[in-house]
Amino acid sequence: MMMYFKRVVLKLFTRRMSSVTLKDVRDARERIKDSIHYTPVLTSTYLNTLSGHSLYFKCENMQKTGSFKVRGALNAVRSLTVPDPVIVTHSSGNHAQAVALAAKLSGYKAHVVMPENSLDVKKNAVLGLGAQVSYCTDKEKSRQEVADQVLASLSGKGVFISPVNHHDVIAGQGTIAIELLEQVPDLDVIVVSVGGGGMISGIAIAAKGINPNIKVIGAEPTAADDCANSLEAGRLIPNQDESPQTICDGLLVSITELPWSIIRKSVDGVIRVTDEETIAAMRLVFERLKVVIEPSAACPLAAVCTEKFKELFGMDKSLKIGIVLCGGNVNLLTLSNLMSRVATTDK
Amino acid sequence: MMMYFKRVVLKLFTRRMSSVTLKDVRDARERIKDSIHYTPVLTSTYLNTLSGHSLYFKCENMQKTGSFKVRGALNAVRSLTVPDPVIVTHSSGNHAQAVALAAKLSGYKAHVVMPENSLDVKKNAVLGLGAQVSYCTDKEKSRQEVADQVLASLSGKGVFISPVNHHDVIAGQGTIAIELLEQVPDLDVIVVSVGGGGMISGIAIAAKGINPNIKVIGAEPTAADDCANSLEAGRLIPNQDESPQTICDGLLVSITELPWSIIRKSVDGVIRVTDEETIAAMRLVFERLKVVIEPSAACPLAAVCTEKFKELFGMDKSLKIGIVLCGGNVNLLTLSNLMSRVATTDK
Ligand SMILES: Cc1ncc(COP(=O)(O)O)c(C=O)c1O
Ligand SMILES: Cc1ncc(COP(=O)(O)O)c(C=O)c1O
Repeated sequence: MMMYFKRVVLKLFTRRMSSVTLKDVRDARERIKDSIHYTPVLTSTYLNTLSGHSLYFKCENMQKTGSFKVRGALNAVRSLTVPDPVIVTHSSGNHAQAVALAAKLSGYKAHVVMPENSLDVKKNAVLGLGAQVSYCTDKEKSRQEVADQVLASLSGKGVFISPVNHHDVIAGQGTIAIELLEQVPDLDVIVVSVGGGGMISGIAIAAKGINPNIKVIGAEPTAADDCANSLEAGRLIPNQDESPQTICDGLLVSITELPWSIIRKSVDGVIRVTDEETIAAMRLVFERLKVVIEPSAACPLAAVCTEKFKELFGMDKSLKIGIVLCGGNVNLLTLSNLMSRVATTDK
Repeated sequence: MMMYFKRVVLKLFTRRMSSVTLKDVRDARERIKDSIHYTPVLTSTYLNTLSGHSLYFKCENMQKTGSFKVRGALNAVRSLTVPDPVIVTHSSGNHAQAVALAAKLSGYKAHVVMPENSLDVKKNAVLGLGAQVSYCTDKEKSRQEVADQVLASLSGKGVFISPVNHHDVIAGQGTIAIELLEQVPDLDVIVVSVGGGGMISGIAIAAKGINPNIKVIGAEPTAADDCANSLEAGRLIPNQDESPQTICDGLLVSITELPWSIIRKSVDGVIRVTDEETIAAMRLVFERLKVVIEPSAACPLAAVCTEKFKELFGMDKSLKIGIVLCGGNVNLLTLSNLMSRVATTDK
């Protein structure tokens, strides 16, 4: 009996930790595509001139629930085989909304743990999708503790869907790259922001599976630069600061084992950006692309505008760069407060 | 000599006043399509539920120069046969930017008359595109007076491109409908805001040329409802108020002869909306579609949410409605000041 139990645990563990393949991402795409938006790609002559490259903006801010997160959540929920589960997760907001919608679409219940200081726009969206919400503190480990309490209270019916450390979630996020490379087949680089690393791992697997020459670059706030530190050190180094100070509320968490096992092999570099650089990028996107993005989604454009990026890629005008605008969940008030900190480009 | 002169004037006049055909719009499309964006169409489950219909938002706010106006301006400039003209126009802003870009693309000079109270974002954009700017007052007739002075000073080299009362401008604006009906072929209704009436005329010609059963509905601010009044009276009645009070700065002018000759035959109705309704629609678009639109672009969604629209079209969920988000040129500060006037839907 004990042997059997061990074997099952081992099998589950192996499945969860087995790496993600292009085929997994392609399967995910078939699983979710009827329920998500095929989001548009925008370009701007002004931003091309400013950056010195050709930029292609994939508008996941216009995705259902306002972020890419619904891709991974829906793939994970639709891959479940247990009957009538209660989906449990923790998230500062976008994965929470995504899980709430994915559960709702399948007729399942969802129970979401959110930091009590999450933005109201995000809390309300989760409640509006019919999920139950429990609150944790803003410390990273408090999230899993409260989620574990919720799971314990559900006596076996609860299924935890991690926001990133989950095979099917990563495969789902990878579908961004499949679409983007359909829309702009000859991209040279894709730049993606990094929180727990689910999005960049899925994108790296899919993009390099399709075209091994493509470069995948991360963008991280300097205050939560665990992925940059880990890549530089060659080993996983989580954020030391328990409550990193950055406006990028989607990028606070550290990368974990499964995404790290992909990132260390497939990601070509991570660029750190300050909150000021991020705000300036948000403003450019607002004024030039006429779209609304949240701070976490502005880091890739901010990264492309850094000296570091120039060092890596030079000033090649013909370089085609995909930029994932990964979320748009921001209050107008927050947005205008943030953007009043930087000068307009509307001159 | 006098006879000859009369004949030439008559010919010019006839050409200018001859009606616009679907073929003209198709030709315009070929003339401009290499230089404009094929703008995306967005949908939102939330907005479908709210309105009770299926809504398709054509994002001309993401068009080059931030509005649809570049379509008409570029078609007009590229149709010119005179050598090395100086393009002259008057506009509160979006047509001004469009003409400035169209002239720049052809290597021509542009001279634009703008009301001195135009938004800074619009004035600066015109100057940034290399055009010369002269200012008029906010009275409607002051625009043409100053433009005539500019033309007189150019001793024959100046070519006036009216923002609406111009065959090629109307044909260019019609290209919106060709694209939209490629993107959503089975639309039942298209709703368009009305200023001088150039956009709605071009769209009505093209849309009804492609599908005679489609309905074309205008949306106008109550404070500048000349098109609604004209349609109801069966004769052209310009705005009586010389400086209409509305936040829709693109919709202040009255419709004129050429668009009216099309509107009276091809437009199925015009719905009046208050500025409060317009602001609420802007907020919905910001929060649900994650895109930035200016007030003039929010009137069609506001119109679809009125009782009047329900009277006309009932509550048919399968009704497919195209909504033109015609411009996105708004300051963040203006936007947040306006939107703080209405409650959020982020609950
Ligand atoms: C808008 C946004 N961007 C980026 C991320 C980071 O994604 P990941 O945690 O998969 O690295 C998140 C995560 O919540 C997010 O919400
Ligand atoms: C954003 C916007 N919407 C609508 C209009 C009205 O277009 P039309 O004058 O062709 O009716 C304008 C005109 O300037 C505009 O700028």
